[in-house]
Amino acid sequence: MNMGGFTKHFNFSDCDTVELAKQYGTPLYVISEDVIKDRCNEIRTTFLNKYSNTKAAYASKAFLTLAMCKIIEREGLGLDIVSGGELYTALKAEYPTEEIMFHGNNKSWEELELAVKHDVGRIIVDNLYELDILEEIAKQYDKIVNIQFRITPGIEGETHKYIVTGQKDSKFGIPLEPSAIHETVNRVMASPNLELKGFHFHLGSQLFENNIYVKGIEVVTNLMKGLKDQLGLEVAELNVGGGFGIRYTENDHPKPLSYFTDAVVEAIEAECAKHGLSIPTIIIEPGRWVVGEAGVTLYTMGAIKEIPGIRTYASIDGGFPDNPRTALYHAKYEAVVANKFNQEPKMTATIAGKCCETGDILIWDLKTPEIEPGDILAVLSTGAYNFSMASNYNKIPRPAVVLISEGRSNVIVERENYDHLLERDIIPQYLKNK
Amino acid sequence: MNMGGFTKHFNFSDCDTVELAKQYGTPLYVISEDVIKDRCNEIRTTFLNKYSNTKAAYASKAFLTLAMCKIIEREGLGLDIVSGGELYTALKAEYPTEEIMFHGNNKSWEELELAVKHDVGRIIVDNLYELDILEEIAKQYDKIVNIQFRITPGIEGETHKYIVTGQKDSKFGIPLEPSAIHETVNRVMASPNLELKGFHFHLGSQLFENNIYVKGIEVVTNLMKGLKDQLGLEVAELNVGGGFGIRYTENDHPKPLSYFTDAVVEAIEAECAKHGLSIPTIIIEPGRWVVGEAGVTLYTMGAIKEIPGIRTYASIDGGFPDNPRTALYHAKYEAVVANKFNQEPKMTATIAGKCCETGDILIWDLKTPEIEPGDILAVLSTGAYNFSMASNYNKIPRPAVVLISEGRSNVIVERENYDHLLERDIIPQYLKNK
Repeated sequence: MNMGGFTKHFNFSDCDTVELAKQYGTPLYVISEDVIKDRCNEIRTTFLNKYSNTKAAYASKAFLTLAMCKIIEREGLGLDIVSGGELYTALKAEYPTEEIMFHGNNKSWEELELAVKHDVGRIIVDNLYELDILEEIAKQYDKIVNIQFRITPGIEGETHKYIVTGQKDSKFGIPLEPSAIHETVNRVMASPNLELKGFHFHLGSQLFENNIYVKGIEVVTNLMKGLKDQLGLEVAELNVGGGFGIRYTENDHPKPLSYFTDAVVEAIEAECAKHGLSIPTIIIEPGRWVVGEAGVTLYTMGAIKEIPGIRTYASIDGGFPDNPRTALYHAKYEAVVANKFNQEPKMTATIAGKCCETGDILIWDLKTPEIEPGDILAVLSTGAYNFSMASNYNKIPRPAVVLISEGRSNVIVERENYDHLLERDIIPQYLKNK
Repeated sequence: MNMGGFTKHFNFSDCDTVELAKQYGTPLYVISEDVIKDRCNEIRTTFLNKYSNTKAAYASKAFLTLAMCKIIEREGLGLDIVSGGELYTALKAEYPTEEIMFHGNNKSWEELELAVKHDVGRIIVDNLYELDILEEIAKQYDKIVNIQFRITPGIEGETHKYIVTGQKDSKFGIPLEPSAIHETVNRVMASPNLELKGFHFHLGSQLFENNIYVKGIEVVTNLMKGLKDQLGLEVAELNVGGGFGIRYTENDHPKPLSYFTDAVVEAIEAECAKHGLSIPTIIIEPGRWVVGEAGVTLYTMGAIKEIPGIRTYASIDGGFPDNPRTALYHAKYEAVVANKFNQEPKMTATIAGKCCETGDILIWDLKTPEIEPGDILAVLSTGAYNFSMASNYNKIPRPAVVLISEGRSNVIVERENYDHLLERDIIPQYLKNK
């Protein structure tokens, strides 16, 4: 993050955020293409180029727009999607479908059909019902569909329980019962329309330790050994998912990607050597890690309310509808007063959203310079799961998204207006007549 | 709720919900006009018609569409709004603006201007900064604006902490410091463009006891007494907000509205008598109470996954994006298998949403008949804070809303499609060129 030179404004990717707020209005999602590129570069240098037979797919549920698809394609990453809507977005952006990995615990017939029709690279099969549907669709279209199985290795990560996904009691994936998995694998091997490419697990989100990945790899390679011994099958791919932690506040101490990927590669090599397996293609799926720190949200401050002896609340012109993560996960954020960036902290303010919702508090007890209505607040690390989770609660239009790079800025999602919020509304005739 | 006759399907307001699912697709928000009418009728008979000088405004943030405005107008209720977007909706529906109460902790200049221009009935002023802006706008438009002050009486309700709003440490309202309030009231009395009509407090949501209202009334009437003694002012209105609890599950035991309103009226009469005050107009603002139980959401079941010895997950085709309340508040819901309504429970299933989010579980351990993919699940009491809080997370289009009444059904909000999700997307030229 570029913290600016002698300006008193907060610069982000060589853009003056106060000017951005003036030009595009607030609230405003600002996404730095430079930060995304840096992250993609780190993926290439410390993983894709360092180790042969590796792949990385961007987990698009973190942040997906047409422009984002273009960036991800240019950066040479695959695209991890979880719904027909995300697939449709990729198609509209002419993203190469063979690089798409399609996840999800309850893909519909229509979604799977769209994927098969467009030759999506991998379908990550979550359950046997999906396998049935997929086989039928593949038959109908006379295609061979490449799949991975999502398995739940029965491991728990240390993070918010909502974003832990690797434990056995999970809605995701095929429970790791070797006999059941063998039966399923047998079935796929017998199908002329399905090809089992490998296994996938996802352990959780915002993880800071690599040992959980090592544990997951031990479990899966053990399964792979059993399949080789009993069915003579060696799968070609091992997809360890994402979950690499990022920095939201000073309490987060994320490690470089290599801390995770080196450990993943080492563990897979060691386990495969031990079990006499060929090394599979190793796949990672970072989402938040790519885009989280690339985002800043700009707000204008309004009412500032001092409750004597208790707390000062500073209200902003957005909040819960554009960033539900604080209410959902008690997520913590850092922020700076963009137009007073060089000023020393003088007070403590709790940043309250504009929503009629007590849970709509963005940041508790933020140290700030003396603040006043009209100040611009920049909340950091909002690139992931903010725009993608935004709602129109309180009939608040969703903010615009501006992509910045080397001092340039471009709108990549236009701001909603009040009419957008009502364009699908219909008043039945009998309610029009009084 | 009409539980149907001899049909094996779940009937709601004389509509076969299985047929609704077939006709309109799933997920589907179904809103019963009949239930809303019943609730409005209860408001009239046990409050508005029973006591003179009373008003009720529907808290539209719970559920607002153009058609809903028409229903609320026809039922003779006022409209409680919290944003420019909700005001715009009311204007588009030609709802009478003099019946609108405008709340919110951080109304913008533009929002207040829209309200003043259109002669909104009451602006509930939350803080002194807002008072400044409002006075300036009123002057510009040469109007007299009728206001209420929102005060925080320093009382805590027994409910989820996110939906408690009456405590002193709150982003909402003017803290109850009599000297500060007297100063503010003096200022309003001196202004030719503002008229102080009364006070408002809101104690929380989903409350089941009336004593908290009585406590709030004691605090506010005490304040009113001070204002009369020291400033000679008797305010005309006392707005006790909403918060009346509804039934989500069998563990909720909501009381009739009169349990709250009788206590409110009695307490106000008693306190006013004690203090020698005239009885003000008494205003209530129910939202959830009007529309919560009027809503049912219909889903189609997909993958059903038994994790031996642990749990059975049944996935539906919606979830977190259309109902974030379970993830936000650990909200509990009841549901029925609509196409097997007369069948005895035979199993326990955890209803998982379709979203790539571990927190996307709608109902834990629901007793159901033997279920299979294609079954229709009807989740009850989803009328409030479901449609209004819906997002497009995972690029999932938002469901349609169907209004049903006496066996008829009409779409009042059309289903989103994938193109809607991308209509504001722009790819900058430099990203189009590879």
